[in-house]
Amino acid sequence: MRSPRDVGVVVVAAGRGRRAGGGPLKQFREIGGVPMVLRAIRPFAAHPEVAHVAVVLPAEAVATPPPWLAALRGEGVHLVPGGAERSDSVAAGLAALPPSCAVVLVHDGARPFPSRDTIDLVLAEARAGRAALAAIPVSDTLKEAAPGGRLVARTVSRENLWRAQTPQAFPRALLERAHAAAVPGATDDAALVEAIGGSVVLVPDDAGNLKVTSEEDFVLAEALARR
Amino acid sequence: MRSPRDVGVVVVAAGRGRRAGGGPLKQFREIGGVPMVLRAIRPFAAHPEVAHVAVVLPAEAVATPPPWLAALRGEGVHLVPGGAERSDSVAAGLAALPPSCAVVLVHDGARPFPSRDTIDLVLAEARAGRAALAAIPVSDTLKEAAPGGRLVARTVSRENLWRAQTPQAFPRALLERAHAAAVPGATDDAALVEAIGGSVVLVPDDAGNLKVTSEEDFVLAEALARR
Repeated sequence: MRSPRDVGVVVVAAGRGRRAGGGPLKQFREIGGVPMVLRAIRPFAAHPEVAHVAVVLPAEAVATPPPWLAALRGEGVHLVPGGAERSDSVAAGLAALPPSCAVVLVHDGARPFPSRDTIDLVLAEARAGRAALAAIPVSDTLKEAAPGGRLVARTVSRENLWRAQTPQAFPRALLERAHAAAVPGATDDAALVEAIGGSVVLVPDDAGNLKVTSEEDFVLAEALARR
Repeated sequence: MRSPRDVGVVVVAAGRGRRAGGGPLKQFREIGGVPMVLRAIRPFAAHPEVAHVAVVLPAEAVATPPPWLAALRGEGVHLVPGGAERSDSVAAGLAALPPSCAVVLVHDGARPFPSRDTIDLVLAEARAGRAALAAIPVSDTLKEAAPGGRLVARTVSRENLWRAQTPQAFPRALLERAHAAAVPGATDDAALVEAIGGSVVLVPDDAGNLKVTSEEDFVLAEALARR
């Protein structure tokens, strides 16, 4: 049975981080000759079940988008100005998706290498009625510091701990309810669903789906893009 | 006041991980033309306060070391066969350090870029009588899975959480007591000190001091070494 083309995607790239010394927005920096956020958008825009992609950007980037971004408009890609908090930006993207989008994926514009496998796996969970997120098991030893200091209070067991990544996938009604009830400070959308008692499933992601923030991350992303 | 040359270092490189399809031990793979474990050893061997470095390796690598490793012997570098568990390997390295080493640093042989700043900072803590470890604040959203499954039980607050790295530094007597009391399963030496009630201090590390395990890590390390 073929799945319907009823998926909407919110790509969150509303941050205003710039290179030290000015220069373009971080999400517009090229990785292997392709702007980072374009890499983040492409696997979704090319997916057969995806009908609409809302790309949430700083307001000035929506007003005067670079040509490669403006060119995406009209192919189901919508440019949406972001809000004050991350969750405001996701909500703005969500509101820009037509009601025909029954399933919604949220992806971080600073993750330029989402895999088709992971997209399909989180999507399958959302079609089954549950929220799902890409995640990686914690492999580091974790220490909890005593409040306000640098003294170790304890080593935290990493058993059953995962690092949350994106894409995250949701039945649209569930994500909308979660955002309507949102409390400030949540660092991902799955947490909003957890807060209203919704079921959230972890989907093992591949290590290549890194978040690109620091200069070291850009070095790695360049090297990965070249291979 | 000049600090005495009384520091011993244990570099733990006793793992038997190999490249897919055979090839050299992971710790002997070259990064920017220099074997990884040699990069891990050098900043310690070159430190003015370090008198001895015990490099803990698989037994066969101690029996027939590669020439660049054999050449280090006699310059205060000792090659020591490892044990079954990580803590056995550290204990073997510790036993190989002469009693004149009053302060001991432990470093992971899979971290080829320890910085001089971090070494000096953890060393200063150990000279003040406390255990210390290099660490990085957790920046990921963490999820705890329900036991034995993939359902999210909760989002774990990352406030006050740090990822433990190496080098870790200890007054020698404290580390010896901690190892004598060691329980199996500890993933770092600081945890053994915590277990006997010793004080452990977190020292903010730089992001460049990465642990090289996966193929992606080797790509990043190559790129960092080239810069």
